[in-house]
Amino acid sequence: MESPDKSASRRAPVTSHDVARAAGLSQSTVSRALRDDPRVAPETRERVRAAASSLGYVPNALARNFVMRRTRTVGMLVTDIGNPYYPNLIAPLHDELEELGYRMILFAERLAENGDQHLDVLLDRGIDGVVLTTSTVTSSLPTQLTDQGLPFVLLTREVDGVAADTVAVDNALGASLMAAEILRLGHRRIGAVFGPAHTSTGRDRERGFRAALTAGAVDLASDAVRRGAYVVENGHEAMTELMRLPEPPTVVATFNDLVAIGALNAARELGLRVPEDVSVTGWDDLPLAAWSSFRLTTVNQQMHEMARTAARLLVEQIEGVAGPRPRRILFEPKIVLRSTLAAPPE
Amino acid sequence: MESPDKSASRRAPVTSHDVARAAGLSQSTVSRALRDDPRVAPETRERVRAAASSLGYVPNALARNFVMRRTRTVGMLVTDIGNPYYPNLIAPLHDELEELGYRMILFAERLAENGDQHLDVLLDRGIDGVVLTTSTVTSSLPTQLTDQGLPFVLLTREVDGVAADTVAVDNALGASLMAAEILRLGHRRIGAVFGPAHTSTGRDRERGFRAALTAGAVDLASDAVRRGAYVVENGHEAMTELMRLPEPPTVVATFNDLVAIGALNAARELGLRVPEDVSVTGWDDLPLAAWSSFRLTTVNQQMHEMARTAARLLVEQIEGVAGPRPRRILFEPKIVLRSTLAAPPE
Repeated sequence: MESPDKSASRRAPVTSHDVARAAGLSQSTVSRALRDDPRVAPETRERVRAAASSLGYVPNALARNFVMRRTRTVGMLVTDIGNPYYPNLIAPLHDELEELGYRMILFAERLAENGDQHLDVLLDRGIDGVVLTTSTVTSSLPTQLTDQGLPFVLLTREVDGVAADTVAVDNALGASLMAAEILRLGHRRIGAVFGPAHTSTGRDRERGFRAALTAGAVDLASDAVRRGAYVVENGHEAMTELMRLPEPPTVVATFNDLVAIGALNAARELGLRVPEDVSVTGWDDLPLAAWSSFRLTTVNQQMHEMARTAARLLVEQIEGVAGPRPRRILFEPKIVLRSTLAAPPE
Repeated sequence: MESPDKSASRRAPVTSHDVARAAGLSQSTVSRALRDDPRVAPETRERVRAAASSLGYVPNALARNFVMRRTRTVGMLVTDIGNPYYPNLIAPLHDELEELGYRMILFAERLAENGDQHLDVLLDRGIDGVVLTTSTVTSSLPTQLTDQGLPFVLLTREVDGVAADTVAVDNALGASLMAAEILRLGHRRIGAVFGPAHTSTGRDRERGFRAALTAGAVDLASDAVRRGAYVVENGHEAMTELMRLPEPPTVVATFNDLVAIGALNAARELGLRVPEDVSVTGWDDLPLAAWSSFRLTTVNQQMHEMARTAARLLVEQIEGVAGPRPRRILFEPKIVLRSTLAAPPE
């Protein structure tokens, strides 16, 4: 692979003045066209591109970035970068971007608590766009990015009142499918560990789960509900509390595989067998859900394909070929039945 | 937090010409000083810094990067970015770099099979330096980076014949400590799943493990040895094979926690109890090693502190305050005794 910059450095340098002369335009028009300034008419832009291309005009990478305000670099904003959930989004996003000719910079949200700080950091880096994976339903960042004209895509999370390209799974549907399976097996004392209420994943999975229970005329007792972050520790703590209730639930539905694994760990510490004594369900279908130590019944949401789709939508925006927006790509959730969900004990 | 660029944009712009006038130097000397050109004497550089500072001279980020050839961005090169091992290095490295004012770009090695391609990509990005986590003992990339003058640090892996800053654990020592513990418990039929022989971690852990067995006059039967990548699947396959030997080992030492967990999964599938029927050991002490589903006996190598140290060494190089090099920081391994290693069955 030979980079264009290297080959350019071996030729006599072609400047934007040469391009202007060849195209019969002023140098400032050429500059504007090269940085996709909207004041330049499409036909003029094409004339400049044709002239630049015929002359082999290739500015060096840093100068090109400076002139074009393009870096061919995309940001990915995540919370809790150490969470083993993220490699399952980061890896396919990275790979798809690489195939499209873009690099990925990771931004870890935990170091900046509010959106304004993110905005400064994102704008300062001169990135071409950003994938947001950790927005809450009231995040102001999407609106700020829209105002600044920085392309972005929401991945796995949705934000209220924002007209943005979004790639997500149908959270309410997936949760209702899992609830239906739980009811079908005969569970009536049901526990739930929902995600954070200010995230679309937490909110919509809870909504779907409750709707299916209501449809089945089964009550979700308020003392059997817990809520919290998508981390192992939260599942561990919630399960420990739920199993100490006077009438513990016969199934604990969680909405994240790491939370489910925390629950499995807690069950083991309490001497409870899963699923003989209590059932547990997850969400995500991470690789570890399939490990024979867990064999977790969970919801598959095609994380790899979601991430790759987000990369493609973002690059289409950056390169001005996105077509009408916003686009909302909704993946179908699928229940994966393994060994942690069974009928309740007699 | 207000970025310097924003505040600068609200003032009348101060140029490098103003700095030159204030310092009583030519503009080209100022430019050279600002990009840390070694031809500028230290006293002159200080004069320029003082003048720039007193005038509040702050070039905008992209222009500064262009002029300084600095991006305040550091690359991290990893293989197999989807491996749940990496967040444990990526997160602390990212955080330490952030504290030092640097951003991190991830480069995934699997997309480019040879060092030359990496070099092009790394140089093309205009990064200030790179942390290599996946070198093999014969990698040519470190030498190429040295030739190109791009700062780098080797993290967890060492490369033969390269004078480079290195942060690693004492692999041979850690493996010998684990071997000694295995012998002390009375094991004599010992199995091992070593890492790749072309990596320093694979090679040195094997060396230390064998040395301790030899010192204890215990033989490591060649049919009880497996080798392979640091992934769950490899541990699963190796364990399955070892347990089918005519005389299966009473302990299987692995040198990576994910490999160990693959072995635990395989044992479970074979109906073997750990440690009652067979013992298993790991290496890394990832968070999941402590989960009660595993309670893995393993080797702690302070991955977070290693990653943070690598970030500091790299930034010191970039900022020209590294002092005499190469520096080799060797962390002490520590055996963490949990529940997967016990005396052999009677």
